[in-house]
Amino acid sequence: MGMKSYRLHDLSPDRIGELCTRNPIEDLTLLETCRAIFDAVEARGDEAVREYTFHFDGVQTPVLGVAPEEFAEAGMQVSEDSARALRRAEANIRTFHQTQGISREVHEIEPGIRCWRESRPIASVGLYVPGGTAVLPSTVLMLGVPARIAGCSEVTLCVPPRPDGSVAAEVLVAAEIAGISDVLRIGGAQAIAAMCVGTETVSRVDKILGPGSRIVQSAKLLASLRGTAIDMVAGPSEVLVVADETAVPEFVASDLVAQAEHGSDSQAVLVSTSESILTEVGSLLESTTRDLPRRRFAADALEQSFSVLAPSLEDALRFANTYAPEHLILHLQDPQQWVRNVDSAGSVFLGPWSPEVAGDYASGTNHTLPTSGLAKSFSGVSLDSYLKKITFQELSEEGLRALAPTLETLAKLEELEGHRRAVEVRLDRGSME
Amino acid sequence: MGMKSYRLHDLSPDRIGELCTRNPIEDLTLLETCRAIFDAVEARGDEAVREYTFHFDGVQTPVLGVAPEEFAEAGMQVSEDSARALRRAEANIRTFHQTQGISREVHEIEPGIRCWRESRPIASVGLYVPGGTAVLPSTVLMLGVPARIAGCSEVTLCVPPRPDGSVAAEVLVAAEIAGISDVLRIGGAQAIAAMCVGTETVSRVDKILGPGSRIVQSAKLLASLRGTAIDMVAGPSEVLVVADETAVPEFVASDLVAQAEHGSDSQAVLVSTSESILTEVGSLLESTTRDLPRRRFAADALEQSFSVLAPSLEDALRFANTYAPEHLILHLQDPQQWVRNVDSAGSVFLGPWSPEVAGDYASGTNHTLPTSGLAKSFSGVSLDSYLKKITFQELSEEGLRALAPTLETLAKLEELEGHRRAVEVRLDRGSME
Repeated sequence: MGMKSYRLHDLSPDRIGELCTRNPIEDLTLLETCRAIFDAVEARGDEAVREYTFHFDGVQTPVLGVAPEEFAEAGMQVSEDSARALRRAEANIRTFHQTQGISREVHEIEPGIRCWRESRPIASVGLYVPGGTAVLPSTVLMLGVPARIAGCSEVTLCVPPRPDGSVAAEVLVAAEIAGISDVLRIGGAQAIAAMCVGTETVSRVDKILGPGSRIVQSAKLLASLRGTAIDMVAGPSEVLVVADETAVPEFVASDLVAQAEHGSDSQAVLVSTSESILTEVGSLLESTTRDLPRRRFAADALEQSFSVLAPSLEDALRFANTYAPEHLILHLQDPQQWVRNVDSAGSVFLGPWSPEVAGDYASGTNHTLPTSGLAKSFSGVSLDSYLKKITFQELSEEGLRALAPTLETLAKLEELEGHRRAVEVRLDRGSME
Repeated sequence: MGMKSYRLHDLSPDRIGELCTRNPIEDLTLLETCRAIFDAVEARGDEAVREYTFHFDGVQTPVLGVAPEEFAEAGMQVSEDSARALRRAEANIRTFHQTQGISREVHEIEPGIRCWRESRPIASVGLYVPGGTAVLPSTVLMLGVPARIAGCSEVTLCVPPRPDGSVAAEVLVAAEIAGISDVLRIGGAQAIAAMCVGTETVSRVDKILGPGSRIVQSAKLLASLRGTAIDMVAGPSEVLVVADETAVPEFVASDLVAQAEHGSDSQAVLVSTSESILTEVGSLLESTTRDLPRRRFAADALEQSFSVLAPSLEDALRFANTYAPEHLILHLQDPQQWVRNVDSAGSVFLGPWSPEVAGDYASGTNHTLPTSGLAKSFSGVSLDSYLKKITFQELSEEGLRALAPTLETLAKLEELEGHRRAVEVRLDRGSME
């Protein structure tokens, strides 16, 4: 098994571009498939949702909403250890996300011209947490906690039903901890369709957030064409590790393998200035993977991953910025010194004691992050994702009089006479002339 | 002429929903048209761009880029008055947008767990400013000034060529004031395609921002399917005015007409608690519109606009939030008191001396704002639009040890053994055991 390895100096810019290209998102065929699902859900509501659930998931779901008794039962099923871990994760996520608001700070731009911004919650948000065989209570917290801090008044959570039609107890306990009571056993494109158009059981939402398969992401794109906001299009998870000669090979290998076990399409990239680190990590990958329950995924993912020998840390970080990884781990002697070289990444982990798994679960940062190179232009989910920022302005009569010549000149320039007169009528009627 | 008028209490929730619904965005046919354009531009670069420019705009553009001499000539053509107005607008826009950054503030979430966010500019952005017959230097400032404050290293501006192949002098002067030197005479879907895929002359960008026609917005949607970020999909401009009995009818009428003159598809909505204000404003609309150069647009727009009599200001503001206007003007005795009732709007103007035209041009706030009800989930363009916010974390050995039980429990819960081991391998090798 093993990653392909390259020397950075042997790679042409085009080849670097190829190595840094992940799955393209555009797929109008998948959009057409989603359109049929959206149209059916719009026309026939819950009935259509249930049909698609049976068709795609093979599960009968006579009742789509999760009942209070199911929450109560889940609370009894989940161990106290697990519940405690979820609560601590929630507390840390809450602490960090609470720091992200904007304050109402009024700025006097010129005398008599006061401008400011205030944030308002997006009233209703829909969260999607993938499932089926996997159980992802951590994603419930990552999406739900900032929604509550923001003050969203309606929070809807869709989770695919398990074969018996239930939702995993851990997911329900996490939902309860995050303060979400509106949980629906719906997955796939039909879940996104239901939250976009609304049904008898599912509220129509203003924004949809969360990871998921290609069909789920295509459905989110279609929702965005219909005017429902989305967080971003999420692809397979990925990590890029930059390591110097002081890195501990076992730590690096464990980080690459933890990423690789997510799925066959995950990518784990290692960039190092040290040949011996590359060799040692490479030789550790097999033993680190061997007895994992998900070794098949990990081995497949590592097959399509790669390592790069870089002549300097500047070059290594430059490559990392071109790749723009979802997760960037800096196994460096003095990682703080290199923070300023990081231009594009979803979330960054500094030094030997900051494994990605800390941010995946419980350090407080969000794990819903831009993939596939979108970190060049997108931020991960944060409190911002649940807020609008509205600008306000109040001019005094003096403020408007002072600004009037500028406004009138620009209105003339753009040949918008009605704009100019909206100023003039005020000057004519004002108390100062 | 005139707006339809309604009494809020006579309107059913469904009817209110209809009144608040604007143009739907989804149009897969337009997307297919754009796809052909994108594919041609991807295959044949500048040549295809020039062909589409000739096909759609009837203009020959042998040279796509604007040369330094054209800037110099523009500088001589534009009056000192106009240049001064543009510079003052730029100064105010800069002042307000400079207040919008995030500071690097490190938070200790638990002892030994430090998390923070830092912002980084999106490296390359593409700005689209509509034109052809209209001349919109103000939009150049609104899109360009925050790009420069953010520190974007490449800023590309596309403007449709005029019939003689030139770009308006005012637009070039505004570009120069905003610090943009890379201006291209390209409009329509071919401009968006060129910035999305890149050509010999046009740099490929990470994000595209700006208003434009339906075809331009569809092209932006397609660009977003191809992984290029966009600001949002912009529809026709709109204003909603809330007026109480203290409002000055002439001011209100001038604000409605200023909005209506943008285009036949603009919408101007008046909501008032005062029947006499509704009557007086209604009777002023004709005279306010009569001798405007763009009276045809204004009259058409007002035909499809409407007014609503609301029983209370609470109700009026509730209706405004349901409509979620791009611009909200509060012609109220004590507008500050009603700010907290505003949930959904792009930008808000308080009191008689704050006409929308102040924010359109020069008070400092941005005029690129969410339309068509998107203000429920989108913010206007701000410094944020040009930045990514990256999360960072650094744990100490003690920090990781203290968090380890939580991390290991959650990894077990999600059956990600490789995640658990990334913690374990560190505890085993740490210096504290």
